[in-house]
Amino acid sequence: MCELLGMSANVPTDICFSFTGLMQRGGKTGPHSDGWGITFYEGRGFRTFKDPNPSCRSRIAELVQEYPIKSCAVVSHIRQANRGGVSLENTHPFTRELWGRYWTFAHNGQLTGYEKLDTGRFRPVGDTDSEIAFCWLLNQLEAKFPDLPEDMVAVYDYVAVCCDRLRELGVYNMLLSNGECVLTYCTNNLHWITRRAPFGQASLIDEDVTIDFQMETTPNDVVTVIATQPLTNDESWHKMQPGEFSVFHYGELIHNRTL
Amino acid sequence: MCELLGMSANVPTDICFSFTGLMQRGGKTGPHSDGWGITFYEGRGFRTFKDPNPSCRSRIAELVQEYPIKSCAVVSHIRQANRGGVSLENTHPFTRELWGRYWTFAHNGQLTGYEKLDTGRFRPVGDTDSEIAFCWLLNQLEAKFPDLPEDMVAVYDYVAVCCDRLRELGVYNMLLSNGECVLTYCTNNLHWITRRAPFGQASLIDEDVTIDFQMETTPNDVVTVIATQPLTNDESWHKMQPGEFSVFHYGELIHNRTL
Repeated sequence: MCELLGMSANVPTDICFSFTGLMQRGGKTGPHSDGWGITFYEGRGFRTFKDPNPSCRSRIAELVQEYPIKSCAVVSHIRQANRGGVSLENTHPFTRELWGRYWTFAHNGQLTGYEKLDTGRFRPVGDTDSEIAFCWLLNQLEAKFPDLPEDMVAVYDYVAVCCDRLRELGVYNMLLSNGECVLTYCTNNLHWITRRAPFGQASLIDEDVTIDFQMETTPNDVVTVIATQPLTNDESWHKMQPGEFSVFHYGELIHNRTL
Repeated sequence: MCELLGMSANVPTDICFSFTGLMQRGGKTGPHSDGWGITFYEGRGFRTFKDPNPSCRSRIAELVQEYPIKSCAVVSHIRQANRGGVSLENTHPFTRELWGRYWTFAHNGQLTGYEKLDTGRFRPVGDTDSEIAFCWLLNQLEAKFPDLPEDMVAVYDYVAVCCDRLRELGVYNMLLSNGECVLTYCTNNLHWITRRAPFGQASLIDEDVTIDFQMETTPNDVVTVIATQPLTNDESWHKMQPGEFSVFHYGELIHNRTL
């Protein structure tokens, strides 16, 4: 499998603590060693760091850990390859433009029959089921909404319906962001936690690191972290249900659909 | 203005030497201090490092200098903003997918009347003349060639014609790459050099660095570097003519059109 890590926050926040835990799962405490990637939004722009090498041995991963890039929306992924070879073009997250915004996507799971998905003018560059699913999703969205609608709820509902259809092809856990929102869909493994004042301490499962969030935050901060498996052993993470779809907007849960 | 730096090579090659020179022009020996970016291809995939901060003071730029990422195609740019604010989404290079390949673009110059350009379904995310020009170019290419044609010469010729039209709007110097080729177009300032065996020494103009290429290469290596202004003071750079369009394929000049 592979692991997802996302963050939605109301102030630019660094993800070093969570990323430190995730990085160990890339070949050290976990088997996910066929590449990793992380995308940070900054306004409408984004920065992506990717490496087909295992995260536990990556110089670029060390940079990300040491240089606390602050962002309100983050999508990250470490991969254990099943569909498609190990290469940079097959390394998540994937980013494409739609409606004049950059959309970034990462997928955890495995699909079958995905070759038949019509991706329209969004052509995959690599050969993973994940990128094809993303291109199909964008094609569906563009066909239904040629321009960005005023009513984003209609868009969210339609994303959920599309995710349901992808879930029919196999295991489909997803993170999708446009820099303002982080959309999540669970098939089997996805957890989340919203941290707000009064902040406390937390200890990573995979690395001997404890953080006191009160030292790092202001009383108005709201930070949601989404991960395949909980990253800390002393906090209360919510476990998403199969088919659960959520939208986090600057840290707050603004939309939720369960089956 | 701003400066372009490109590389086309027949073996994965690092650009540290040239990038060291270019980086100094980002706020130290030159005025280009409104962000920089560099894209390295690796097969069909790419990695981009960007910073809206001046390159001479950027931690990410230091990483790029110290971690010699090897690539056969590189597009790089340092910016002095004229059209569009300073932001990550306005920082070159820009990358979009067309024909199932990632195309990366950087522009040096200033255009007027670009708002009228029809970009079709390639919508700009930022507000620079450069990104709009890129989106328009892709729209023109897709309209003329709905699928990637066998005959790439027809594509190259049409890119040149499109560049001529953009040059009617102002100063248009361009680098464009799909990972295999680096396409260049000159309006006023663009120089190139192809280094091959027997390799010699070279000294950067902007930093007290000399390199002995013979220590860094094999006899079969062919490396072309393209830059707005020559980066070394002891080599023979070619100066491109106004309207000159070239295609470099793994280091070799395979297509050239002068007016």
